[in-house]
Amino acid sequence: MLRVGLLGAGRIGRIHGGNVAAHPKAQLVAVADAVLEASQTIAAETNATVATIDGIIDDDKIDAVLICTPTDMHADLIERAAKAGKAVFCEKPVDLAADRIRACLRVVEDAGTPLMIGFNRRFDPNFAALKRRLVEGEVGAIEIVTVISRDPAPPPVDYVKRSGGLFRDMMIHDLDMAAFLLGEDPVEVYAVGSALVDKAIGEAGDVDTAAVILKTASGKIAQISNSRRAAYGYDQRIEVHGSKGMIRAGNVHETTVESATATGFRADPVQNFFLERYAAAYRLELDAFLGAVADGKAPDPSGADGLRAQILADAATESAQSGRPVRVG
Amino acid sequence: MLRVGLLGAGRIGRIHGGNVAAHPKAQLVAVADAVLEASQTIAAETNATVATIDGIIDDDKIDAVLICTPTDMHADLIERAAKAGKAVFCEKPVDLAADRIRACLRVVEDAGTPLMIGFNRRFDPNFAALKRRLVEGEVGAIEIVTVISRDPAPPPVDYVKRSGGLFRDMMIHDLDMAAFLLGEDPVEVYAVGSALVDKAIGEAGDVDTAAVILKTASGKIAQISNSRRAAYGYDQRIEVHGSKGMIRAGNVHETTVESATATGFRADPVQNFFLERYAAAYRLELDAFLGAVADGKAPDPSGADGLRAQILADAATESAQSGRPVRVG
Amino acid sequence: MLRVGLLGAGRIGRIHGGNVAAHPKAQLVAVADAVLEASQTIAAETNATVATIDGIIDDDKIDAVLICTPTDMHADLIERAAKAGKAVFCEKPVDLAADRIRACLRVVEDAGTPLMIGFNRRFDPNFAALKRRLVEGEVGAIEIVTVISRDPAPPPVDYVKRSGGLFRDMMIHDLDMAAFLLGEDPVEVYAVGSALVDKAIGEAGDVDTAAVILKTASGKIAQISNSRRAAYGYDQRIEVHGSKGMIRAGNVHETTVESATATGFRADPVQNFFLERYAAAYRLELDAFLGAVADGKAPDPSGADGLRAQILADAATESAQSGRPVRVG
Amino acid sequence: MLRVGLLGAGRIGRIHGGNVAAHPKAQLVAVADAVLEASQTIAAETNATVATIDGIIDDDKIDAVLICTPTDMHADLIERAAKAGKAVFCEKPVDLAADRIRACLRVVEDAGTPLMIGFNRRFDPNFAALKRRLVEGEVGAIEIVTVISRDPAPPPVDYVKRSGGLFRDMMIHDLDMAAFLLGEDPVEVYAVGSALVDKAIGEAGDVDTAAVILKTASGKIAQISNSRRAAYGYDQRIEVHGSKGMIRAGNVHETTVESATATGFRADPVQNFFLERYAAAYRLELDAFLGAVADGKAPDPSGADGLRAQILADAATESAQSGRPVRVG
Repeated sequence: MLRVGLLGAGRIGRIHGGNVAAHPKAQLVAVADAVLEASQTIAAETNATVATIDGIIDDDKIDAVLICTPTDMHADLIERAAKAGKAVFCEKPVDLAADRIRACLRVVEDAGTPLMIGFNRRFDPNFAALKRRLVEGEVGAIEIVTVISRDPAPPPVDYVKRSGGLFRDMMIHDLDMAAFLLGEDPVEVYAVGSALVDKAIGEAGDVDTAAVILKTASGKIAQISNSRRAAYGYDQRIEVHGSKGMIRAGNVHETTVESATATGFRADPVQNFFLERYAAAYRLELDAFLGAVADGKAPDPSGADGLRAQILADAATESAQSGRPVRVG
Repeated sequence: MLRVGLLGAGRIGRIHGGNVAAHPKAQLVAVADAVLEASQTIAAETNATVATIDGIIDDDKIDAVLICTPTDMHADLIERAAKAGKAVFCEKPVDLAADRIRACLRVVEDAGTPLMIGFNRRFDPNFAALKRRLVEGEVGAIEIVTVISRDPAPPPVDYVKRSGGLFRDMMIHDLDMAAFLLGEDPVEVYAVGSALVDKAIGEAGDVDTAAVILKTASGKIAQISNSRRAAYGYDQRIEVHGSKGMIRAGNVHETTVESATATGFRADPVQNFFLERYAAAYRLELDAFLGAVADGKAPDPSGADGLRAQILADAATESAQSGRPVRVG
Repeated sequence: MLRVGLLGAGRIGRIHGGNVAAHPKAQLVAVADAVLEASQTIAAETNATVATIDGIIDDDKIDAVLICTPTDMHADLIERAAKAGKAVFCEKPVDLAADRIRACLRVVEDAGTPLMIGFNRRFDPNFAALKRRLVEGEVGAIEIVTVISRDPAPPPVDYVKRSGGLFRDMMIHDLDMAAFLLGEDPVEVYAVGSALVDKAIGEAGDVDTAAVILKTASGKIAQISNSRRAAYGYDQRIEVHGSKGMIRAGNVHETTVESATATGFRADPVQNFFLERYAAAYRLELDAFLGAVADGKAPDPSGADGLRAQILADAATESAQSGRPVRVG
Repeated sequence: MLRVGLLGAGRIGRIHGGNVAAHPKAQLVAVADAVLEASQTIAAETNATVATIDGIIDDDKIDAVLICTPTDMHADLIERAAKAGKAVFCEKPVDLAADRIRACLRVVEDAGTPLMIGFNRRFDPNFAALKRRLVEGEVGAIEIVTVISRDPAPPPVDYVKRSGGLFRDMMIHDLDMAAFLLGEDPVEVYAVGSALVDKAIGEAGDVDTAAVILKTASGKIAQISNSRRAAYGYDQRIEVHGSKGMIRAGNVHETTVESATATGFRADPVQNFFLERYAAAYRLELDAFLGAVADGKAPDPSGADGLRAQILADAATESAQSGRPVRVG
């Protein structure tokens, strides 16, 4: 029975805490958050105790921690927990600065403790099945990866200002997915972005509509497009074109109901809320982390995956600002 | 070059006449209709001459005739044309009375001339592909056949009164399709019907909504449902369930366009007009007739198929009226 | 906090027990089963105690019981629990004999206690959404209901022999669904059945392939077809045709992945196992029961719904055997 | 009755010639080709006469010409026909050099004669319906255009060498489509390309797999991806994301048949051959040309559209070679 502590009791911490509590091989023992009420809520739901961050990190009986705090605490907490000998699951991103991530990963490497980064979409049953079939060779050699990712509605401008920008905040998931599906690191990044959804986002120096082309050393190509707004729900699609064909994973509609009237056939919008759309992914992600820790295997996605995605997001940000492609790696 | 005469220059005659005229191995030489203008229109479109029915039947240079007249003339014209040694393509039904069909088929048999009945849907490329794959064994032994057929809008009550009723006028196509797909003649027919679309249809003694169960000697089952009205277009679907799986052919939408907005995903209505929906079927049907005649092969669907469908339609009519299943064959 | 006892700790008891244990407003306090190990397993998973059936029924602190025992114990246990003042949720069917159900319902009526029957499919989110939109009038007046229900694989012949036959064991769900969707009680039932899947089922006096037509007093029509085997998964579809259009709820595929290669486009089989396919339905069903009991409202589907479905299943059985339609109600 | 001459009797000339011959308001009077047999074949099919190019251009009774010759003759023939006062329909591209196109368009402008360029995909009923609904505002302001275009199989390397390269030969259609859908001229083009399908294409200095990002002055974005090989058929898809939702037009499958077996659900490959996939588009394109000429309206797509597409294709070629985005317009 793995004993787990939760650092950060916000929306995503609650998801992970609940998944630990429901897991047959793990136990959520303690929850810490700057907001006492938040940790109390999760503790009550999961039979965990309320604790402080220090208390959890110093507790020798705790095997693993989940870091779900604000981004600017991630790297410090990873380092402290690793030095305390704990396995760490940390929400993406490790840090908004690639150099800080590099330093953090060196600390973890020295500590020899497991670290997993929360690229939850890799664990979505649809995307995971697609990846498995890709590896099995169903469509042959990979040639073009297409990722379409559109949020239902833009975040508040205040959030946007602290977010690091669309490429680091939103597209980072798609950059990880593209690299994951390509099976080869991109070496060149070209990005364009516009503020078409909300003028205030543009005035805050960010974009809300963007497209990226990635290219690998062997010539494989990935295309990503993002929008901060989709009237029909949370649009999440991937497609891979290969030498023997094509494979894609589509959206999840609210129900399978379809009606047909004089105006045509109508199907439901797609699931609108990321916590609903990726509920199974969050559960399977935690299961993969707990399983890797229990089995003494290196968790995947690793800290290096977190670094790669951040480097790609930095490159995309720079490219969109400079108007020129940026080489990476 | 097969020389063809057209008897009946209405809506369906015009389709067949045009298809003959465009066929590389046939020539439409003459058109006859009680309404002179109708035959003149088609003649002008196809470089055929205007003629009389007698003139066409007596013309030794004409190899084949297409009978597209009102139903009550079908059997007589088939007999006269057969006796004159001509190959005959006749629109369904041969006659509204099964005994009259039997007598007619005897005349044709004596004449030894080819006769094909216009069950056009067998030639729809989708349905024909399904049938071919069924015969190839893709879904194993046939167990349940489902036919859904709904017209876009009910016909005028005046038409209904002369039509022989829904089972003989509309469902006859689906009864032929069901028997064609079953690959075995039904031996029992149970039918229910209601007038739910148009009260006047009920007052005229007919129904506009109906369902039928057919059963064969070996226990295979077919289900058919009909409605005289479908708000979303001309609904034409077939499905066959077998020991190894299921195969179906769906509707043809007006375009492949799909939009997604706050109310969901919207696809086009299905093609609304039978002459558009089955345009390819009419063309391929004529091609099959002309090819069979040219090659000296027996055309398919045959007169016996026309008789079987009529017997099934009669049985369904009787069953819906009596409330009891009716044995056939 | 509703205190709930579970009678019967088999496969379905385990599902319901787990759903009670996870429910925020209920507590699973005791589990009874003839097989001690079975009740111990569920008790361990849910923090309930192991008890006897008598112990649970006699326990004044238990508010409600879930009856998940073999069918032949259902009616007796319903009566005993009702007399003991408990709310009862009972798996379908109440009994294989309609008269026994009638007697049982009188006892419940006298006791004045709530009774809900487990027609779980009504709570499937897809089917429930379809029903809601039907009631809201999206497709106008209801005219034709189509239910297609095919199991992935036939049960063992031993099970078939004790099952009451396909119409009572399998189609009863579809008969309830058809009546539920029609919104009007059927008055006539015609059924055909064959043993096409497994000869041994036929030798045991049952069928494995069947079709039914139901008709209501106002002329609405329902069609149901069943097969005990579908190579591509657990096939569960409903469709309602109405005066303004059509509405349907389709199957749930294992994933949204679709590949395209030289042989065409390939999508996943549909979910194969009924406990997976209807996992949400079981959860929502229990929630509806617990909610109704907590709010003092009559649970739905009621005992009368259980009786109606049984009467329809009896009528279908009789019709398939006699070859004649059977009037009900 | 418009009198039309056909210059070039290859594969595409035969399509256009046939469409003119079948058009109610036009007549194909003469066909010219360097290969006599080719022009004889079409002449025989359409009742046209065999002529020379000079003969057709000098024939005062011919109102319009269709230029379907090799690309290097296009601009000269457009100029000669325009000077002879004829309406001209010319297959894309006008020329592989943008400056030559500019000079040609000045000649046409001086002549004051109509010129239409054969971007046939705009006339595909699916894409045309999408465009119409876009203009009607169904998805609001246009933000992201996505075009996916994949050929079934790569052309021979000899063809590739003379083709001007993938961007000018294949993607030019998608560049026109993207600009057409954006409703605003792109001002920046970034392209990447690889030879992943056929090494020999790479050795010939061309690519067979490519992606492009276009950006307009107002910040709208278009993404195009191309492959010279798709195992599942001729893949032709467009999607537009806007402020109110998304609209897309999908592929056309060979039939609507779908089977379901133990390995899942299988639908047909998409139509494989461009002449089949775009048969309706070619017919409607000719109809638009003939209608514009008859009504004295400017045909659309115009010579300026041909020039724009060529400039975009040149920019994409340059970008893929230099690795830098290229500004246009």
